[in-house]
Amino acid sequence: MDRIARIQEGFEPTKYGLDEKFVLTKLTAMKGCGCKVPRDVLLQLLETFKTDLVINNDEVDIGLDSCVIPLRHKGLRLVQTTDFFYPLVDDPYIMGRITCANVLSDLYAMGVVDCDNMLMLLGVAVDLNEIERDIIVRQFIQGFKDAADEADTKIRGGQTVRCPWLLLGGVGTSVVHDDEIIKVDQAVPGDLLVLTKPIGGQVAVNSYEWLKKENGKIEELGLDVAKIRRAFKQACEQMSRLNRNAAKLLHTNHAHSSTDVTGFGLLGHAENLARVQKSKVDFVIETLPIIEYMDEIVDKMIEAGGEGFRLYQGRSAETSGGLLIALSPEDAEKYIEDIFELDNRPAWIIGKVVERKGDENIAYISENYSKLSIHSPL
Amino acid sequence: MDRIARIQEGFEPTKYGLDEKFVLTKLTAMKGCGCKVPRDVLLQLLETFKTDLVINNDEVDIGLDSCVIPLRHKGLRLVQTTDFFYPLVDDPYIMGRITCANVLSDLYAMGVVDCDNMLMLLGVAVDLNEIERDIIVRQFIQGFKDAADEADTKIRGGQTVRCPWLLLGGVGTSVVHDDEIIKVDQAVPGDLLVLTKPIGGQVAVNSYEWLKKENGKIEELGLDVAKIRRAFKQACEQMSRLNRNAAKLLHTNHAHSSTDVTGFGLLGHAENLARVQKSKVDFVIETLPIIEYMDEIVDKMIEAGGEGFRLYQGRSAETSGGLLIALSPEDAEKYIEDIFELDNRPAWIIGKVVERKGDENIAYISENYSKLSIHSPL
Repeated sequence: MDRIARIQEGFEPTKYGLDEKFVLTKLTAMKGCGCKVPRDVLLQLLETFKTDLVINNDEVDIGLDSCVIPLRHKGLRLVQTTDFFYPLVDDPYIMGRITCANVLSDLYAMGVVDCDNMLMLLGVAVDLNEIERDIIVRQFIQGFKDAADEADTKIRGGQTVRCPWLLLGGVGTSVVHDDEIIKVDQAVPGDLLVLTKPIGGQVAVNSYEWLKKENGKIEELGLDVAKIRRAFKQACEQMSRLNRNAAKLLHTNHAHSSTDVTGFGLLGHAENLARVQKSKVDFVIETLPIIEYMDEIVDKMIEAGGEGFRLYQGRSAETSGGLLIALSPEDAEKYIEDIFELDNRPAWIIGKVVERKGDENIAYISENYSKLSIHSPL
Repeated sequence: MDRIARIQEGFEPTKYGLDEKFVLTKLTAMKGCGCKVPRDVLLQLLETFKTDLVINNDEVDIGLDSCVIPLRHKGLRLVQTTDFFYPLVDDPYIMGRITCANVLSDLYAMGVVDCDNMLMLLGVAVDLNEIERDIIVRQFIQGFKDAADEADTKIRGGQTVRCPWLLLGGVGTSVVHDDEIIKVDQAVPGDLLVLTKPIGGQVAVNSYEWLKKENGKIEELGLDVAKIRRAFKQACEQMSRLNRNAAKLLHTNHAHSSTDVTGFGLLGHAENLARVQKSKVDFVIETLPIIEYMDEIVDKMIEAGGEGFRLYQGRSAETSGGLLIALSPEDAEKYIEDIFELDNRPAWIIGKVVERKGDENIAYISENYSKLSIHSPL
């Protein structure tokens, strides 16, 4: 099924035999990668593992997207990632696409272009009736499978349980030669930072939910319904877009460092990435490319005394966000040209790598950062 | 931490800083592998994948425990499995052990003795307070890790989300040479069926819960509290016991076929296994080895008009159950001797492989089946 056509069409529950009032995202209180356990809590809880996280005599930080394991078989490594979360859009088909793209993205972030196997993880919400369950699960699986097809991988396993919430996820695994993985810890001062999808996904998804819920927030903040609808489609497009071409180009453009942007937000992932660099560097973000109109919503939320999802602090969660890459200035320019050619989508230079100022590598948003409003490609 | 000592000691919430009334299993309405989506529903929902389930030109049945994927690298295969479910015992440490043992069991069922990587999947129940969460998650992780250590594998990745129920699981992955996997489809008439852990785990876990909940069922059925406590410890011991030695012996004793017994019950898994055999065979179960006293509970439940967990029909769910193996009569005897030597635990011949009677391979429990009451090793 064509991804873009499906997004353009929008999801009408009645068309699939569901009640017109049916709302998939009602089946959970949390959305997408926003459901993650807070980072500090997680790190604390994972202390037990500390001594295990040794690969090739290097301590490996859990900030890495995938685990990379040297195998008994010479020159081969196992690269593996898992993710599961809750529905954040109402179309179960698109949700399947997003889930698959989000899992694969962790492999792509390390330059691993070919996934050898996907497992699908599914928690079927207990309060669905049988008809709803069948329709939703089928649509979800179809979307997950279509994305896997597009990624030239197959789904051969998984687990399905009953759960109070609809729980969606997967595991991506690849066995690769050393040269199929890019080294993600090679950033040096002078590198530029490139981002391949705009931020603001959480704002788009939530404002669209206010609209559907008719909870008064749209009126309260005086928001533009048409612009919200447009931004939602833009978010769906980018969340369901594979980062596979972005991964291929990491190799051809000699990326020094790379991660994907998900639940911890742009800055959270930049921090994770900066911390694992071999050189003494800081990552400075100077430009925030934001889905069109999402900055205006955030401005209005802040005016009204809110935090605006902490978007400008780089803390707003993304699901299946873009890759954040450090490369030389020449390679950065070339990368942006190449990705536009392959995906027909822009990418942006959003900052730079500098010599670090303190005792530890950090990432931060420059005081004089600028916002870039990114128009929908749809 | 010593597994047996911990089980013997029992779990006192106050000892770990939890309220004396704290009950881990309250955090879900479903227990262990009993949470699986019913098999027929699952098969129907998974239709979408049918065309994908092709390995080496053979259709692979989803009855298999792990997926086995030929890799681009010569002679190597990726073997992978995932499982997640809900707490079914109150000690989070033992629950961590059980979860890990249960995930690994799918690899062991195929003769894969060495797991190259584990991912841990964790849903942290939203209604836990912070203290409870920290205590429980730490204990769970410790148990999971101790089991992984015992299995000579490492946990290097995973995902943690917030969830209404405490959700526990993992992914086990191994990259193996062809000869590290046993062929599980080679059963022939004349083979005997061996089982390495008694059934009745669901009865043990549930009757123990009646006791803790003080819901009147113990009195109603006139049950023996001491015997229930003893059976519960027996169940904990066998659920947390790795099937790794059982897996090693599949090779040395030339097993023709093997699976592990979990959510679909003994007969359900026997059916799955019979169906994938190359030869025209039926699996006949003639003996049900049952955790001591669990048959008496089932008898009383049936007397009172209940189904007794359908234990005698082979449908009672097990979590981290034993391996069910088909081998030649000589190998079967030797297998049972060997496993006793390695694990200091008995295994039993529970049936045989015969030429099939109908058009399809089936498994069934003989009308004249006998019950074997298995005394606790603790």
